[in-house]
Amino acid sequence: MLIGELGEEALLRQLRSLFAVTSTGVPVAVGDDAAVIDIPTGHQMVWSTDILVEGIHFLKAWQSARELGRKSLAVNASDLIAMGAVPRYALFTLALDPATEAEYVLELCEGFCELAQEEGIAVIGGDTSASHAGTVISVTAGGLVPAGRAVLRSGAKPGDAVLVVGYLGCAAAGLKLLERGFAGEDYPELVRAFRDPACLLAASQAAVAVGATAMTDVSDGLSTDLSHICAESGAGCRVRQSDLPLHPELIKAASELGWDAVAMMLAGGEDYSLLICVDAAAADAAAASIHEQSGVDVFRIGEITGGRDMVLVRNDGSEETLTAMGFDHFTRPGEPG
Amino acid sequence: MLIGELGEEALLRQLRSLFAVTSTGVPVAVGDDAAVIDIPTGHQMVWSTDILVEGIHFLKAWQSARELGRKSLAVNASDLIAMGAVPRYALFTLALDPATEAEYVLELCEGFCELAQEEGIAVIGGDTSASHAGTVISVTAGGLVPAGRAVLRSGAKPGDAVLVVGYLGCAAAGLKLLERGFAGEDYPELVRAFRDPACLLAASQAAVAVGATAMTDVSDGLSTDLSHICAESGAGCRVRQSDLPLHPELIKAASELGWDAVAMMLAGGEDYSLLICVDAAAADAAAASIHEQSGVDVFRIGEITGGRDMVLVRNDGSEETLTAMGFDHFTRPGEPG
Repeated sequence: MLIGELGEEALLRQLRSLFAVTSTGVPVAVGDDAAVIDIPTGHQMVWSTDILVEGIHFLKAWQSARELGRKSLAVNASDLIAMGAVPRYALFTLALDPATEAEYVLELCEGFCELAQEEGIAVIGGDTSASHAGTVISVTAGGLVPAGRAVLRSGAKPGDAVLVVGYLGCAAAGLKLLERGFAGEDYPELVRAFRDPACLLAASQAAVAVGATAMTDVSDGLSTDLSHICAESGAGCRVRQSDLPLHPELIKAASELGWDAVAMMLAGGEDYSLLICVDAAAADAAAASIHEQSGVDVFRIGEITGGRDMVLVRNDGSEETLTAMGFDHFTRPGEPG
Repeated sequence: MLIGELGEEALLRQLRSLFAVTSTGVPVAVGDDAAVIDIPTGHQMVWSTDILVEGIHFLKAWQSARELGRKSLAVNASDLIAMGAVPRYALFTLALDPATEAEYVLELCEGFCELAQEEGIAVIGGDTSASHAGTVISVTAGGLVPAGRAVLRSGAKPGDAVLVVGYLGCAAAGLKLLERGFAGEDYPELVRAFRDPACLLAASQAAVAVGATAMTDVSDGLSTDLSHICAESGAGCRVRQSDLPLHPELIKAASELGWDAVAMMLAGGEDYSLLICVDAAAADAAAASIHEQSGVDVFRIGEITGGRDMVLVRNDGSEETLTAMGFDHFTRPGEPG
């Protein structure tokens, strides 16, 4: 059945039952003009929003509806996690072509709901609309952080170690594989990194506990996200190629398909790994603690420096300037980011 | 210049400077992974979200970019106001065809910012993306309400008076006029009601002060929005045709163009008037107080009843069942709502 046959009212009924909240802290959830949420004393709220547009951020062929639903929440949760906050609330908006299969839409919503339940996030609102251009998903997520404890991009100090939690370039490689028609089974971890990124809440909370000075998630590629920390902190950095987290499947794909794995680690977006700065003297213990708390691999890739330059130290000892490779939706609209 | 020539980075720079927040209560605004906001002790937060899709909710020909920007915030603020909350925060997302004029986009953002400043709302985040099908605007707004004081749809009691703040059917009439090519000067108030709806914060706060038992905004048409109050409150209602707020311009348009003004008042959406229930004995004083505090006309249109039926009393004394006329985006995607 198409969503245009099912109708908005029937879809909304199904969504309300799917998202029915029994969470504490949500006295009024979906169904009134707006949701009401309790804020525990001594906390601040942290909010972020992202939009995913079919044909820009995703194609239906690239992932299941369930994975897409999960990812649409994960990318928002990642922003909150990167602030040291705990994601608690989400609003979920869908614009849909009436010719979309209702089954696809419900599976997408179920995926969103599934990750919300796994992460303890209450779905407190949303909106639906028709669309003339395929599926548009807009998600806004809110989290809680003890007052004054949010970890910003601006707190890095010269000498701080730079840690990465998780791998780099995997999602970009996964996307390239999907675009080239590879099935998931050839490089399962790369494809999964693109389709269904992990939520690194435990790692983030561990980073807060060990005194992270700055944190961000790697959504636009290491070079770009590291440049944000440097710019906001008024600092530079030195990163060693040899210490970058190179996933075994990325080595294999780069070798078999002739890709530049290092370039993909530096520029590839959508990994939703964490980039963490921490006092150098405590960095190895911090990395060990974050790994222990989260089960995710942690890599010490370099340090914050006093200048404003970002430097990459190549494996042969040569140094080059690391340039933020950013991504522009409007000038290159055909590529995701 | 087109937005595809300006580029996302340049647009974001302009937006950051436009939305630069100096508000108290926003220690971290736009520019980090997420915004951080302070929540005053003893308050709850209220959140709502809406999406506006070009060709579904608006056409560029119907209103200026500035008006569209204002309206995209106003419709969200209206949901918070209808809970008795004070809108304080907004996140603003734009998906844009790269062929959109940059000037149009900036004017749209300025309109959003203009209403935000008028209403004391801090723009704390957002996202931008390319789009394959015109402009998509997604807004999420948050407000504050003293703990336990949100006015829900569910609190109406049999015997309560039903008040309407503002007029009904005007926005629907304004849209019909615009679709038929009327210029704004023929029916300025009707067209303005559609293009640039008012924020009724003062009226809502006055309604809270006089003990409103239930409140909602009239976004989907009186019959539908009143049915929500009745359903949530487990009640019915009686509404008198003679007491419905009939705007002089709607009388004129209905007469000149052969429209059914009463049907438009009952079914026309997007007025963002307020529908308020209040104890009958205090209702006239409440209406006077709301009018005095807000300057907006207030009408006592009927009462909540003990049954579950919604009844319309016609001017000739006959009674008929009032049916919620709802709107379905998926089965009737060509019409706004």
